[in-house]
Amino acid sequence: MSAGNEKDRLAEFTAFRKRMNARILAEPNQVVRRFFALDTQTYQPGALDVRTKELLGLVASMVLRCDDCISYHVAQCRESGVNRDEMFEAFSVGLVVGGSIVIPHLRRAVDFLDRLEQGEPAPVAHDHG
Amino acid sequence: MSAGNEKDRLAEFTAFRKRMNARILAEPNQVVRRFFALDTQTYQPGALDVRTKELLGLVASMVLRCDDCISYHVAQCRESGVNRDEMFEAFSVGLVVGGSIVIPHLRRAVDFLDRLEQGEPAPVAHDHG
Amino acid sequence: MSAGNEKDRLAEFTAFRKRMNARILAEPNQVVRRFFALDTQTYQPGALDVRTKELLGLVASMVLRCDDCISYHVAQCRESGVNRDEMFEAFSVGLVVGGSIVIPHLRRAVDFLDRLEQGEPAPVAHDHG
Amino acid sequence: MSAGNEKDRLAEFTAFRKRMNARILAEPNQVVRRFFALDTQTYQPGALDVRTKELLGLVASMVLRCDDCISYHVAQCRESGVNRDEMFEAFSVGLVVGGSIVIPHLRRAVDFLDRLEQGEPAPVAHDHG
Amino acid sequence: MSAGNEKDRLAEFTAFRKRMNARILAEPNQVVRRFFALDTQTYQPGALDVRTKELLGLVASMVLRCDDCISYHVAQCRESGVNRDEMFEAFSVGLVVGGSIVIPHLRRAVDFLDRLEQGEPAPVAHDHG
Amino acid sequence: MSAGNEKDRLAEFTAFRKRMNARILAEPNQVVRRFFALDTQTYQPGALDVRTKELLGLVASMVLRCDDCISYHVAQCRESGVNRDEMFEAFSVGLVVGGSIVIPHLRRAVDFLDRLEQGEPAPVAHDHG
Repeated sequence: MSAGNEKDRLAEFTAFRKRMNARILAEPNQVVRRFFALDTQTYQPGALDVRTKELLGLVASMVLRCDDCISYHVAQCRESGVNRDEMFEAFSVGLVVGGSIVIPHLRRAVDFLDRLEQGEPAPVAHDHG
Repeated sequence: MSAGNEKDRLAEFTAFRKRMNARILAEPNQVVRRFFALDTQTYQPGALDVRTKELLGLVASMVLRCDDCISYHVAQCRESGVNRDEMFEAFSVGLVVGGSIVIPHLRRAVDFLDRLEQGEPAPVAHDHG
Repeated sequence: MSAGNEKDRLAEFTAFRKRMNARILAEPNQVVRRFFALDTQTYQPGALDVRTKELLGLVASMVLRCDDCISYHVAQCRESGVNRDEMFEAFSVGLVVGGSIVIPHLRRAVDFLDRLEQGEPAPVAHDHG
Repeated sequence: MSAGNEKDRLAEFTAFRKRMNARILAEPNQVVRRFFALDTQTYQPGALDVRTKELLGLVASMVLRCDDCISYHVAQCRESGVNRDEMFEAFSVGLVVGGSIVIPHLRRAVDFLDRLEQGEPAPVAHDHG
Repeated sequence: MSAGNEKDRLAEFTAFRKRMNARILAEPNQVVRRFFALDTQTYQPGALDVRTKELLGLVASMVLRCDDCISYHVAQCRESGVNRDEMFEAFSVGLVVGGSIVIPHLRRAVDFLDRLEQGEPAPVAHDHG
Repeated sequence: MSAGNEKDRLAEFTAFRKRMNARILAEPNQVVRRFFALDTQTYQPGALDVRTKELLGLVASMVLRCDDCISYHVAQCRESGVNRDEMFEAFSVGLVVGGSIVIPHLRRAVDFLDRLEQGEPAPVAHDHG
């Protein structure tokens, strides 16, 4: 949740996600595979740009309180040009809509953002979810 | 949930919300009053513009499945210039993140949007929540 | 949700709840019946008094956003001596923990409390749930 | 929620759902349309039969507390041969996993089931969601 | 969440659960103890068989996003004869109803299932919850 | 989640929370900072005493299933004089309202309480959230 071997943990998590996504997509279940494809399609540019859509994904993840999803969208937001002040405004919407129960996730989100800004590699963008 | 006396129901709901907000803010409870003030402040323009923030509020409301909140943010989004295609892209994020359990709320959101576009008066903007 | 025929609606709701509870308990499903019994037992006086337990039930219902449950516990709190200021402090905890998504439920809770204080009959206490 | 004009309400709800589904699917948003198609595909027979899948949809809807979804799956379960005792066992799983907050939805589910068993027309099966 | 010392972690978790269940049931709180007994009773064979009930518990756990509960029911499903294809169909229902927010839990569920199929000992069945 | 180096983990968590709260409050985002202030104000003595308010925060955290929040309020409850039997009665309300999905959190809550009672230092009270 915090300390020194945090970099290893992020690398481990990224590898885990990549490996499990491959496992899941190799399965002969068409509904699951289509869902994954649809999830990727959801964040493609369209009437709204990628930046806005990733912010929407971020706030949805905050109020539903899913750390992995929050980390993923924080990284994607950053990649699409969201700066720290904008990120915190998105956090503020998630916090006010979702309440103090969101605070522990906010702490981990800020920690994750800090580490990204200090140059740690973000999870790879193109294996969504 | 649908038919002919829908216009009356919207007017009745708007009046109810206005009246109850006044009741609540008249109460000598500082935490509740400050929360209402903070809720209003959350959607003020800042690093992100109002349009983006209202879209964030909309998607957060969809995945948490609150009809009143969805209606409110649909009206606010429209007021801040979000068009129908953009609204549907925001809906699509809410639907994919939140799942099929969001569908009944999506139906009511689209019905509400349709009526706004046909000229029904939206809930008054400045008594938030 | 608000206006004139509100008294009828409360009476109708109370009758509906009573009738359906009887239907459910008449069913030969032991798990469901035991759950209902356990639910009733939960709010009996013990290490904590009824008043405190009903306040706990109220705030749990607020953050989970169930109007029927909120109304029920508001009535029970009142019956066990919780006054308006205390009720609003419980509301404030529910609001801050649960966030602005709780606001529509808070409005209906305050409306319900207002009507109780104006002498409308509360739902009968002993058919819980 | 209860009394005499309940039959009209069900017919009204079915018409509303049908109309709004058509509205939504007419929209040029591919993600939303694909989601609706995927939702329908989810309950097709496969490794699990329709009956089991509808029971899964029912319990998922109960613990997420969506009345429209519960009604829909109760009707579908009945159509695929689930009897009253089996339905109540599914209800019992939803109740124990989801807690007493599910009770108001259980009451409405049983009321809906009662009316189906008394011969009221169920919502049309093939416009899912 | 993934790597080499995973086997130890599962053993540690199983021991933790066993120990804490014993602690909790030793407590003089009748409501808590009765709830645990009721939870066990819920999954006994009745109008629905164990297999179906465990699948219901699994999907309920997925949409409510509780990893420990998902692992428990995956193990129970397997024990009652649910094969991999059937498991994935249950996963697909949970995913579509609950949305992309379920994906991180799906990854961990598949990882857990993989390890069970590779012969790792499942959590002991008879200390439920 | 359990074993020998548990004491270190608690210390680490407390340090992490303290550090991240400081990071967050140093940020020039007024909404977030006001929310944190409001969160602290919520549990100040008023019409209800601190003990009751902390119990409310505990049960709200249980039904919303946030381990960090539960630990925090268990420690605060203990500090304000809630004894073990009272704590378990609060747990029982959370368990019955929230359902069996709460059980894994209950196990961790009891483990945390056990360790507090054995003299481990609780998280510092005055950096709330």
